[in-house]
Amino acid sequence: MDKLNLWKNLIDKRLREVFRPQGPRTLIEAMSYYLFQEGKRIRPLTVVAVADSLGGDLEDAVTVGCAIEMIHNYSLIHDDLPAMDNDDLRRGLPTCHRKFGEAVAILAGDALLTYAFEMILSKENFRSLPENALVSVARVIAVKAGSSGLVGGQVLDVEGWEDLVEVNLMKTAALFEACFVCGGLVSGREDLVPDLEKIGRSVGLLFQITDDIIDKDGVYRTLGSQGALQRAKDLYVESKERIENILGKETQVIDLLNRIYSRVT
Amino acid sequence: MDKLNLWKNLIDKRLREVFRPQGPRTLIEAMSYYLFQEGKRIRPLTVVAVADSLGGDLEDAVTVGCAIEMIHNYSLIHDDLPAMDNDDLRRGLPTCHRKFGEAVAILAGDALLTYAFEMILSKENFRSLPENALVSVARVIAVKAGSSGLVGGQVLDVEGWEDLVEVNLMKTAALFEACFVCGGLVSGREDLVPDLEKIGRSVGLLFQITDDIIDKDGVYRTLGSQGALQRAKDLYVESKERIENILGKETQVIDLLNRIYSRVT
Repeated sequence: MDKLNLWKNLIDKRLREVFRPQGPRTLIEAMSYYLFQEGKRIRPLTVVAVADSLGGDLEDAVTVGCAIEMIHNYSLIHDDLPAMDNDDLRRGLPTCHRKFGEAVAILAGDALLTYAFEMILSKENFRSLPENALVSVARVIAVKAGSSGLVGGQVLDVEGWEDLVEVNLMKTAALFEACFVCGGLVSGREDLVPDLEKIGRSVGLLFQITDDIIDKDGVYRTLGSQGALQRAKDLYVESKERIENILGKETQVIDLLNRIYSRVT
Repeated sequence: MDKLNLWKNLIDKRLREVFRPQGPRTLIEAMSYYLFQEGKRIRPLTVVAVADSLGGDLEDAVTVGCAIEMIHNYSLIHDDLPAMDNDDLRRGLPTCHRKFGEAVAILAGDALLTYAFEMILSKENFRSLPENALVSVARVIAVKAGSSGLVGGQVLDVEGWEDLVEVNLMKTAALFEACFVCGGLVSGREDLVPDLEKIGRSVGLLFQITDDIIDKDGVYRTLGSQGALQRAKDLYVESKERIENILGKETQVIDLLNRIYSRVT
């Protein structure tokens, strides 16, 4: 089994271990609903691949990745709501609010976001991460998930700016930035944070543009098919060079990058 | 000026200092909307009063209190939504979703919750709190704000269990528990956490019951006027005894307790 598949299994297993919220049954079911559907787990895989290349503790990287995966899934629940994208289906199944009602879906998103912080602030969930690294990791996640990142981008999206590259940057790239930076922090490489953030930005933007191309949406509508594909190619080349410079040519991060780019090539 | 009023001024001032989110203007306005309306600031005052009695750093207690106040205000934004209580007015002004639209109100709540963690995980916001205390404080806030606390209670509320004492416990008492426990943690008194949590529970329940009596809602409907007032009296007596045992007779926490109980006497 290749490393990425092995890590994906570890992530799926760890997610079930660290996801132990208490509370009303309906709420827990709604919180779990998207989280345990089969997913690519591309964000936690990124954290692990970066930590692997930098000699970080892989178990701790998996755990940090699980927190980011929870944040990603809370954002999907809220994005699907009637007041936002008003989607009835996700991955061929009823969306969270269609299944559990709008009130419970809003609250499930809130609780999942909150739980991500509870989980990552619980020292017993980590093997070797010192407390100061834990604070840095949790803070990076908060910044990237917040008003200048994930949530900020969604606001611009509902305001109708979804064609702008900046919106994609804030909305999607922010969490990828968190993944790359956290992979570095787990490995004790604070010195690499600015470089890893830049890599996260270009990989995240590539990810969103491949999404737009597949959905014929967003920048696909602004740039057209050819323009969007060219933009994807440029970002792929740029990302690859940056990754090789910082993480070396043998890193699994390149495999992840290829996996993302291959969605449109 | 008495201590509580002095502290309230410090809290109002500090809230403006530590609330510096980046992002789209509309989002920041919606996040600020409830937060900077004139409020009692009873939760941050509780953190400060407890820390004062236990010899903790008051500036750090104010900052921790500001994070809890942000969480309280995010919960108000989401509770008011059409899918929840569907309120048009709060404190005589349009509710957040009435003023900014439902999508922005949902996202403003999300961003405010996230920002509370960003703020409390920023070491530069604290004068003397060591990193391990910071992790403990942030974790307690996450637990009490989450599926077994604030959000869990709101789920039971929308499911129609609002008359049950347990719902009030989860919904309101959870954040009061966080306030008392954090006041202890800021003061380096991990040993008092179980006692402070119990005090928080009874004070929080008293607060919610006085709210119910004023609004003729919740347990007021279950127990009737006399029953609810008796329950409030019992909780007042119980809280006072517990507070005096742990924090002494001179603590400002008794003044806060009296302030709460005097709303119905």
